[in-house]
Amino acid sequence: MAKAPQTAITPTRADDYSEWYQQVVRAADLAENSAVRGCMVIKPWGYALWENMQRVLDRMFKETGHQNAYFPLFIPLSYLEKEAQHVEGFAKECAVVTHHRLEAGPDGRLVPTGKLEEPLVVRPTSETIIGATYAKWVQSYRDLPILINQWANVVRWEMRTRLFLRTAEFLWQEGHTAHATSEEAVEETRKMLGVYRTFAQDYMAMPVICGEKTPGERFPGAVDTYSIEAMMQDRKALQAGTSHFLGQNFAKAQEIKYLSAAGREEFAWTTSWGVSTRLVGALVMTHSDDDGLILPPRLAPQHVVLLPMYRNEEERGPAIEYCQKLRAELIAQRYDDEPIRVLLDDRDIPRVDKKWQHVKRGVPILIEVGPRDIAGDTLMPKSRFESTGEKKPAIARSEFVANVAQILAAGQKTLYERALALRADNSRTIDNLEDFKAYFTPKNAETPEIHGGFATSHFVETPETAEILTALKVTIRCVPLADEPGFEEQVPGKCLFTGQPTTQRAIFAKAY
Amino acid sequence: MAKAPQTAITPTRADDYSEWYQQVVRAADLAENSAVRGCMVIKPWGYALWENMQRVLDRMFKETGHQNAYFPLFIPLSYLEKEAQHVEGFAKECAVVTHHRLEAGPDGRLVPTGKLEEPLVVRPTSETIIGATYAKWVQSYRDLPILINQWANVVRWEMRTRLFLRTAEFLWQEGHTAHATSEEAVEETRKMLGVYRTFAQDYMAMPVICGEKTPGERFPGAVDTYSIEAMMQDRKALQAGTSHFLGQNFAKAQEIKYLSAAGREEFAWTTSWGVSTRLVGALVMTHSDDDGLILPPRLAPQHVVLLPMYRNEEERGPAIEYCQKLRAELIAQRYDDEPIRVLLDDRDIPRVDKKWQHVKRGVPILIEVGPRDIAGDTLMPKSRFESTGEKKPAIARSEFVANVAQILAAGQKTLYERALALRADNSRTIDNLEDFKAYFTPKNAETPEIHGGFATSHFVETPETAEILTALKVTIRCVPLADEPGFEEQVPGKCLFTGQPTTQRAIFAKAY
Repeated sequence: MAKAPQTAITPTRADDYSEWYQQVVRAADLAENSAVRGCMVIKPWGYALWENMQRVLDRMFKETGHQNAYFPLFIPLSYLEKEAQHVEGFAKECAVVTHHRLEAGPDGRLVPTGKLEEPLVVRPTSETIIGATYAKWVQSYRDLPILINQWANVVRWEMRTRLFLRTAEFLWQEGHTAHATSEEAVEETRKMLGVYRTFAQDYMAMPVICGEKTPGERFPGAVDTYSIEAMMQDRKALQAGTSHFLGQNFAKAQEIKYLSAAGREEFAWTTSWGVSTRLVGALVMTHSDDDGLILPPRLAPQHVVLLPMYRNEEERGPAIEYCQKLRAELIAQRYDDEPIRVLLDDRDIPRVDKKWQHVKRGVPILIEVGPRDIAGDTLMPKSRFESTGEKKPAIARSEFVANVAQILAAGQKTLYERALALRADNSRTIDNLEDFKAYFTPKNAETPEIHGGFATSHFVETPETAEILTALKVTIRCVPLADEPGFEEQVPGKCLFTGQPTTQRAIFAKAY
Repeated sequence: MAKAPQTAITPTRADDYSEWYQQVVRAADLAENSAVRGCMVIKPWGYALWENMQRVLDRMFKETGHQNAYFPLFIPLSYLEKEAQHVEGFAKECAVVTHHRLEAGPDGRLVPTGKLEEPLVVRPTSETIIGATYAKWVQSYRDLPILINQWANVVRWEMRTRLFLRTAEFLWQEGHTAHATSEEAVEETRKMLGVYRTFAQDYMAMPVICGEKTPGERFPGAVDTYSIEAMMQDRKALQAGTSHFLGQNFAKAQEIKYLSAAGREEFAWTTSWGVSTRLVGALVMTHSDDDGLILPPRLAPQHVVLLPMYRNEEERGPAIEYCQKLRAELIAQRYDDEPIRVLLDDRDIPRVDKKWQHVKRGVPILIEVGPRDIAGDTLMPKSRFESTGEKKPAIARSEFVANVAQILAAGQKTLYERALALRADNSRTIDNLEDFKAYFTPKNAETPEIHGGFATSHFVETPETAEILTALKVTIRCVPLADEPGFEEQVPGKCLFTGQPTTQRAIFAKAY
C-alpha cells in the first residue's frame, strides 16, 4: 500500500470526519471549549469571521427595512408559560436564574442568596419578551409593521455539545416582526429566507435548499417554519438558518393587538427568523480539507498573507521593505467593494510553522517573499483553493497586483461550484423504500459516515413514517419551495413509507 | 411673573433634572423599562446611537492593535472566589444560575429542576473567566502581549436603576490584556484611557478629565484604576469609562504564567478597560435641552431629516420629488469620511407631531420643504444646536448642500465648547473646608440639585475625610493626571479635611 501523503490535520476527513472537524476548528484557532460546560470561547480568528458574517447580514437586514434594537437577557418564567407549545419546546434546556446575591455560608464558601420571587430564564430565544414589548408599542395599524432585529447571545442547555454546531451559549441574530395582515407576515418570512439563501450562497459559497419544515419539525409555536439546508462534506444535512411564520399564536399569547383602519381590534401577525454562530461550523464543514480550514474570500478576515523570508539581518531590511510596498499596492486594490485585506507576518517564529499556521487558518492567498523573488520582482502566490502540492510558475509582481481581486473572485466561485458538485453527486430521487434504505445504509462498517446524501422522495408524515426514519437515523429536512431549482413541478406519487398517494416530495438526509 | 415659554419636555432641567432626564430618554425613543426588574429595552433610535459609538470605538481598538473575541456568559462560582477583593466587590449584585431545566410542579406550574453541581454567575465583568483562558494560551514570553476586546452584555443586580445610567443588564466592551512587564501593562492602561478621552471629546463632544482613582474607589482587585470624568448639566460628575492596571493580582489568581526570555517562570501583568451603554446616558445629560435630545453630529444616526409639506395630492408629487433629489445631493456630500445620513420622512402622521418627534430625538438638521421653498429653490434648515425659536433667513438649496458638512462640523464644535464652558464656569480650586462645604450646599432648598460643581482641593484619603464627604454627599472623583490641562504642576498644600501636608489634589463632586 502506498504511503498516504502527509496532511496538516489528523485524522483526515475519510478517517474520522467528526474528529477531523474538531481538529480543523482547533488548528484554525477558531474556538475552544471553556471551563463552563458547553460554552465556547470564540478566539480572535473565529470571531473575525463571525464579524464579517455579521457585517454583511446586518447590511442586508437594513437594506430590507429592518432596524436593530436590544431586549432583556432574562425572561420571566410566566412569559414563557403563555405559549404552551413554545414552553414545551424549550423547558428541558433552560438556564434558570433563581438568586441575585452571593453570601458566605457556614463553611465560608459562597452560596446563592436573595431568592427571586419569580425565576428568570436566560433567553433561549426572545419571542415572548419581545412580543410583550411590541404589545405596548402597537395601538393602531399605523404602528405596523414593526421590523426589528437583535444581535444577541442565547442559552440552550444542550447535553451533547460541539464547537459552533451545538453549544449551550451561542451568538445569533433574531429578527422579530409584527404585521397587520397574514399575507404581509408570510411575505416577510419568505423574504428573510431569501436573504439567508443569498448570504449562504453568495458569501459563504455554500449551496442551500430553501424549504418548508413538516409539522413535526416546526419551531415550537410556529404556524410554518422555513429553513435553508446545506450538505456538508460527509453528505449530512445542516440546517443553516430558519424563518418562522408565527401566525397570531404569539400575538394572542402576548396580546399584540391593534385597531385596524376599519376601527376593529385585531391581533397582529408575527414572524421570527435567525442565524447563529452555527454558520461558522457550516462554513468549516463545507469547504475545509485535510490541511485545515478553507475560507471563502468574501468572508476571510485576511485575503493575502505575506511572509518575508531572509537568512540574516542584512537580507531582512530589503525583504520587509519589499513586502511593505507590495502590501500597500494590494491594499489599493479593491475586492467586493473594499480594500484587499493584507497581513504582513514578520513574527519571530520558525517560517515553516508560520506558513502552516496560515494554511490551517484558511487564508486565501499566501506568498513567501525571499531574496530570489525580490531580485526577479516575481511572486509565487499559493492559493488555498488549489492543492497545496501543485507547483505554479512565478508571476510578475505587477501582474499579481493587477489580478488579485480576480483571483479571489475565482476562488469564491470555485468553492461554490465544488460544494454544488458534491451535492449534485450525492443527491437522488428515490421512489421505493428498499432503495431508500440501501441509500442510507453505510456501505462499509469501518466508514459508517459514508452513506447516500440527500434523497428526494414522496411522503406523508405519519407515525409509521417517523418510525422507519428513526430506525435509519434519517430525518425529513424540508419540502423544497416551488421556486427551488429542480422542484418546480410537484408530480403525484406514492408515499414511500405508507403507500398513501401524495404530491408532496421532501429532502431526506442524516443531519447535524 | 412672565409666562414661561412652552417646552417639549416637562419638567424642564431647572424644575427637576432627574425627571427631565427620564422624559428626554422617553421622548427621544431611546429606551424604556422592561417587565424584567432593572433591565431595559434599547429602542431602535437608542440602539443606532450605540451602534455608532461601537463602530468608532471598535475602529480605535483595532488601530491600537486589539482583536475581538468572545468568552462565556457564565462564570463558575469557584472562579470568582479566587480573587478575594474581586468577589467581595461583586457578590452583592450577582444573578446566579442554579438550575438547567423547567418541569411542571404539583400545581402544574413550571418550577426549576436539574440543579447544577456548581452555581454559575452571569458575568458582572469577565476578568476571572478570561484570565483562566489566557492561562491556557500563554506559555512563553513570545505569546505575550495578548490584546483582546469583547463586546458583550453583563449583569449587575443593582437595586436602584435608571435607564442607561444604572441598569441590571447593560451592554459594554471590556478589553483584557496580558503583558510580560509591569511597564508595558501600565502603558496599555494609560493608552486605553487616552482612547476613551479622544472618543468622549472628539465624538461625544463631552469634555472629560483623566485621572487616577484613590484606593477607596478602585475596581475590586485592581492595583490602579483610571477614569474619565465628565460634568453633566446639573454639575454632577459622571464616570464615563475606566481603565485598570491589575498588576499580577488576577494573573496569580488565575495562574497566567509564562517562561521569560531568561528562562524564568513569571506571572503576567494584566489590564482591563471598559465603557458601556452608560455613555448614552452621559451624552443625553451633557447636551440635551428642554426640547429633548441634542445629538453630536458625528454620532447621530441621521444628520438631516427632510419633511415634505403639501396640502393635497397635487402638491405631494413635486414635494416628494424635490426631497428625493435633495436627499441624493446630500448623500453625495461627505462628513467625517462618510456620506451624509439623510432621512426623508413622508409618514402619514400630522406634520407638527412629526417635526417635534425629530426635534425631541435630537436630529442635527431638520428641513421642512413646502411649495414656497420649492418655487424659490431655497431652504429653511433648522439646526438643533441653535435655539428653536430663532428665525434665520432662507438659503439657496445649492448653498446648503455645499455647506452641510461644515454646518455639522460647526455644530459638533458648538456642543463641545458649550459643555466645556459649563464645566469651566462650575469648577473651582478650594483651599479651606468652610468654602468647600458652602460650595456643595444647595443655595436653595427648592432646587437641591443646584450646587457648586467640581472642586479641586488638596486631600489625604483618611476615614475622617470619608466621613466629611459622606455627610456632604460628595465623592472624590479622581486625582487628575499630570498631563491633564490645568493640573501639570502639583503644588504642596494642606489636606482640607485633616490638615495633613500633601501634594495631592483631587477633583471632588457629587456624582452619578
